[in-house]
Amino acid sequence: MSQVETKLTIVVRADLGMGRGKIAAQAAHAAVSAALASLGTADFRAWLRDGQPKVVLRASSAEQLDSLVALASAEGLPVQVIHDAGRTQVAEGTPTCGAIGPAEASRIDAITGELPLL
Amino acid sequence: MSQVETKLTIVVRADLGMGRGKIAAQAAHAAVSAALASLGTADFRAWLRDGQPKVVLRASSAEQLDSLVALASAEGLPVQVIHDAGRTQVAEGTPTCGAIGPAEASRIDAITGELPLL
Repeated sequence: MSQVETKLTIVVRADLGMGRGKIAAQAAHAAVSAALASLGTADFRAWLRDGQPKVVLRASSAEQLDSLVALASAEGLPVQVIHDAGRTQVAEGTPTCGAIGPAEASRIDAITGELPLL
Repeated sequence: MSQVETKLTIVVRADLGMGRGKIAAQAAHAAVSAALASLGTADFRAWLRDGQPKVVLRASSAEQLDSLVALASAEGLPVQVIHDAGRTQVAEGTPTCGAIGPAEASRIDAITGELPLL
């Protein structure tokens, strides 16, 4: 296996009681948004070459998600926050997850390294 | 809420014992692959306008996933099958999920309508 140097990290709120299908749909939304926002960048091309590696981590509150995303953004990393359309399970506009990247894995790890896997 | 006329349906195998984070990563991979493969098509643009609606459904075996994907492809729908890179939980090359769409919702429902939500 070749060394993976880029990644897309998706941080999902575990405090909303979302089911696994709902979580999968929200994470997919975050990943698609992140990919489309980074089309044509060097990081995007490197990430595709690496095989689109993704890691899904757990945040325990809206505040924790907000704070990680703000920190990543301040470091110049691409970020996306997904707000639910409110059709099922959570109220419209609730932030459910965020994407950080695609970017160099070490830059993302410096921000999300403390979070557990979802 | 405006009427949603397109969707991306992700069919996930529930027989592999994947955890929710693994499922989210596989579904995200399927969604990104489907989006990138359909860039520039009329269905893709309509799907973005609709707000990227996604539905995550459950298949109970590799055979059921294969058969749905083959049927969708025979109907001219865009399909993607994700094979795991084998870093965690399942063996390398295992088909874990598939994406059908983005496309007109009724065309997808005609094929996946019997499947339960994940």
